[in-house]
Amino acid sequence: MSERNLKHHGGQHIVSSFDDDLIAVQAKLSEMGGLTEDMLVNALEAIKNRDPQLAQDVVAKDKRLDRLEMEVEELATRIIALRQPMAQDLRLVISALKMASTLERIGDLAKNVARRAVALASVRPTHLSNSIVRMGNQTLGQLTEVLDAFTSRETPLAVAVWRRDIELDEMYNSIFREVVTYMMEDPRMIGLGSQFLFIAKNLERMGDHTTHIAEMVYYIVEGEPLGDDRPKGEPIGLDGL
Amino acid sequence: MSERNLKHHGGQHIVSSFDDDLIAVQAKLSEMGGLTEDMLVNALEAIKNRDPQLAQDVVAKDKRLDRLEMEVEELATRIIALRQPMAQDLRLVISALKMASTLERIGDLAKNVARRAVALASVRPTHLSNSIVRMGNQTLGQLTEVLDAFTSRETPLAVAVWRRDIELDEMYNSIFREVVTYMMEDPRMIGLGSQFLFIAKNLERMGDHTTHIAEMVYYIVEGEPLGDDRPKGEPIGLDGL
Repeated sequence: MSERNLKHHGGQHIVSSFDDDLIAVQAKLSEMGGLTEDMLVNALEAIKNRDPQLAQDVVAKDKRLDRLEMEVEELATRIIALRQPMAQDLRLVISALKMASTLERIGDLAKNVARRAVALASVRPTHLSNSIVRMGNQTLGQLTEVLDAFTSRETPLAVAVWRRDIELDEMYNSIFREVVTYMMEDPRMIGLGSQFLFIAKNLERMGDHTTHIAEMVYYIVEGEPLGDDRPKGEPIGLDGL
Repeated sequence: MSERNLKHHGGQHIVSSFDDDLIAVQAKLSEMGGLTEDMLVNALEAIKNRDPQLAQDVVAKDKRLDRLEMEVEELATRIIALRQPMAQDLRLVISALKMASTLERIGDLAKNVARRAVALASVRPTHLSNSIVRMGNQTLGQLTEVLDAFTSRETPLAVAVWRRDIELDEMYNSIFREVVTYMMEDPRMIGLGSQFLFIAKNLERMGDHTTHIAEMVYYIVEGEPLGDDRPKGEPIGLDGL
């Protein structure tokens, strides 16, 4: 994995290896991970402080994330073309592509939350914000841990995050009930309540993506899939509504 | 692109080429495309006819779609490892990976619609179903056309689908208003109305994915991105609610 090549590049001799290339990809993935965390932190802050400008900043950051995903794709494609990695090494490069795509999706969801935070800032505050921010912080905690697990390749940490996603599912179900009750008590709040339902759904889907990352970590380290007996909250039906 | 290799496989000599490999990948992608259409058709049918069993069948089909995505990944990885394709050919294989991942996401959304159709079948019918089925048929039309464009590599068809996504955005906004009005008139319908909001959102996101496929077709054929001046419906705010 450390075979070295000499390339002529812009008049300079540059020594690079497959390992160096992988480190460059890893650096971009780390930047992407940091950016998704930052976007979620600020989207939640924007909801809490009713700050439309902060929310707009989050929306703007998504472009950077999209660009980084494209850069990972280009880099990975170049690595495959130039290094022609086999088996295990090739698996690593393909995993990087999947990781970039998953992080881009998480950022997209954070952007959606921020967009709704812009709308929320223009109407009167409600206690529903507290529940949403609490759920958001739980999502953020899982995201941070799974990114740590990805960087450190710590399987037990990844498995712990994977198992804990059920807590987010339960928070989502509880917020769904809370919002519907709220809307029933005051039908003028139905438009507003719908925004909270969509935000909660976005957070729950971010949680799903963190479990996908946990599965990738497991697969990279252990060489086999994590299996599919993950505890999962029941999708909410119409009972009792 | 038609260089031939002789491989020894299970006691038989098999002649295969990069072209043959690509055809095998294309066949799996076609199966995935057909499956997503089938899932959406039946999810809509299940809403229309209040048929929970049909909806359950759709949910079950998603497993097949997940398996197909994994098979495309394995095949693509093997092609890269064995054939070591360069430049244009490598781009094609990477595109196949992205296409498989996008189709898997579309199927996931169809599964979500079907899950909600199960819940809807147990409560009394409402005229909201008609609007949702109409929007679903528009989504289905776009999906079918973009899959045709992908198979035939017809750029103009792909661009037409890409431009028409705004119609779906507008249908989504109009359904959002319709559902909220409905819930305001009869607050006992808030739980039910929320299900329709989520279904409409799932359909709108399927539309977004069809535009992603249109962009892939354009990129594969023209070798450059489609640009980002696509007409886009305004995300709905809280005005007038």
